[in-house]
Amino acid sequence: MPQLRRDPISGRWVIISTERAKRPTEYKHEEQKINDTSNCPFCSGHEKMTPPEVMAFRDHGSKPDEPGWRVRVVPNKFPALKIEGPLDKAGEGIYDKMNGVGAHEVIIENPDHSKEIHDLNGKQIDDVLFMYRARMLDLKKDPRFEFVLVFKNRGYAAGASLTHPHSQLIALPVVPKRVREEIQGGEQYYEFRERCVYCDMIDQETYVRVRVVGENDLFLAIEPFASRFPFETWIMPKVHSSSFDLIPDQEIPVLAQLMKSVLVRLNKVLNNPSYNYVLHTAPFNQPNIPHYHWHFEIMPKLTQLAGFEFGSGFYINPTPPEEAAKYLQEA
Amino acid sequence: MPQLRRDPISGRWVIISTERAKRPTEYKHEEQKINDTSNCPFCSGHEKMTPPEVMAFRDHGSKPDEPGWRVRVVPNKFPALKIEGPLDKAGEGIYDKMNGVGAHEVIIENPDHSKEIHDLNGKQIDDVLFMYRARMLDLKKDPRFEFVLVFKNRGYAAGASLTHPHSQLIALPVVPKRVREEIQGGEQYYEFRERCVYCDMIDQETYVRVRVVGENDLFLAIEPFASRFPFETWIMPKVHSSSFDLIPDQEIPVLAQLMKSVLVRLNKVLNNPSYNYVLHTAPFNQPNIPHYHWHFEIMPKLTQLAGFEFGSGFYINPTPPEEAAKYLQEA
Repeated sequence: MPQLRRDPISGRWVIISTERAKRPTEYKHEEQKINDTSNCPFCSGHEKMTPPEVMAFRDHGSKPDEPGWRVRVVPNKFPALKIEGPLDKAGEGIYDKMNGVGAHEVIIENPDHSKEIHDLNGKQIDDVLFMYRARMLDLKKDPRFEFVLVFKNRGYAAGASLTHPHSQLIALPVVPKRVREEIQGGEQYYEFRERCVYCDMIDQETYVRVRVVGENDLFLAIEPFASRFPFETWIMPKVHSSSFDLIPDQEIPVLAQLMKSVLVRLNKVLNNPSYNYVLHTAPFNQPNIPHYHWHFEIMPKLTQLAGFEFGSGFYINPTPPEEAAKYLQEA
Repeated sequence: MPQLRRDPISGRWVIISTERAKRPTEYKHEEQKINDTSNCPFCSGHEKMTPPEVMAFRDHGSKPDEPGWRVRVVPNKFPALKIEGPLDKAGEGIYDKMNGVGAHEVIIENPDHSKEIHDLNGKQIDDVLFMYRARMLDLKKDPRFEFVLVFKNRGYAAGASLTHPHSQLIALPVVPKRVREEIQGGEQYYEFRERCVYCDMIDQETYVRVRVVGENDLFLAIEPFASRFPFETWIMPKVHSSSFDLIPDQEIPVLAQLMKSVLVRLNKVLNNPSYNYVLHTAPFNQPNIPHYHWHFEIMPKLTQLAGFEFGSGFYINPTPPEEAAKYLQEA
């Protein structure tokens, strides 16, 4: 019998196929191609092919838009939103609109075209995470923005057009729907129980241990009970914290260690899959709230969304999270 | 400057690229393949290849599971949900779950493998729509179900695995999130203005006429102001009605006429695209409500969703609905 499961935060239902659980090898395998590096705008030595850099972690003595960087942030050449201009909020009859103001940046994770984030050493992943935090803290100063979404598209099926390992961020003048829903769900749960729903989830998961993928002193990685996608994995701080940008320096290497371990396993079990990950954190104007909890959501792209998913908001997941956790633990 | 637009029903924001509007020919074209008919379980003469039929419109004298049908409904051979069994709602710590009880049916739109819905004549499309209504009315009798979602996946990019033209339906024990959101949004709007938000949208669209794709006495087809997808098209009854299953017999041919006209244009302008459509209607236990309005949403599959969309719930639409409406009007 398939099972209907409800996500305790957003209230969305998923259909979990519990009978014939799909094994990792049963998903269509996508070859990760590495495109020609001679035209890659993100490779070291090609700094002039991108717009001028916004920020970089660089070796002592190196200059902006020249080699010598470890992580480099540039504006997206084809931005979804434009950085200049006023919001000009306006109505149009019953409709609402505003100018598409926002930052759209590319975070080039390392100078080496062939090294995906899971290939990097601890120190290099630290740099990527420090950069996520640094860009958030910087964009927070712009009063037009309410939220920064950091995300990564890896592989063609996940929407990546360039293969050089990179993340992106988009700073937005509104809190996006998905995050608003999580915060509202967290608020309702908090009103009822006076506890953070994510903290309760962490307690239950570390107790029952059937969906734990990995952990260390400070962070936990799980397959969520109502996973939308096969091998969907969340990484969360064990101690309550609503805003990623408040993470202390000394915790970043501990997070990097677990992220690496999780991504290495996902790559091994799913044979180099395409995936998206997103970083969900509290909006700028709500730092330090008791009912929200920052987290990474990693979503391998193994299934296709169709009419049922678009029409209902339901998801069909052919691999129960408990099975997925087992594969990942054993990897 | 790109524009941020808010859907007045669900509150979701979309980013509309207004500067370099993408023309239909700029989207990657997908060839619609017609697979071998000798193994097609939906072709006339192959009735034994499907589970026994649930319902069919048949020529006088023809027998179930034999040729002679015009529209035929069979259980999905690989159902997402199972028709037998109790719901067994239960908790698991902080989580909620129930048995995956539901109907998953295939509506074979016509016996001819090569005739897509837009190729059919008026009477044949009437039959398909009469069948949607008949299945809803039948499944409504089962007290375990709260909602039936009718949907169609056309083409590989839209998730279709078989090319013989067919729709599907899934009867669900809960109201799906997307419909719940629309109803809640409609309710809030109604509380404030005492009018249906869809009716107001219809008034505004028929007045400004920049997003109208087609209309007749009873139905209107528009590109919605906050279209998530390029060439997204909605078809709605002009007179308020919340439940599709209450549509009077004499209105079905009028709806079929507009659906055909819209699908023919979409096929012409987008060169045979893959698409999904979904039918949104009020839940079984809320018939005849003043704040909801049934409608079809047609979503051509021209763009790819990636980390930003999954993480935010935002959509990026490279063709403004006003441009899309122009192309479709001129077709």
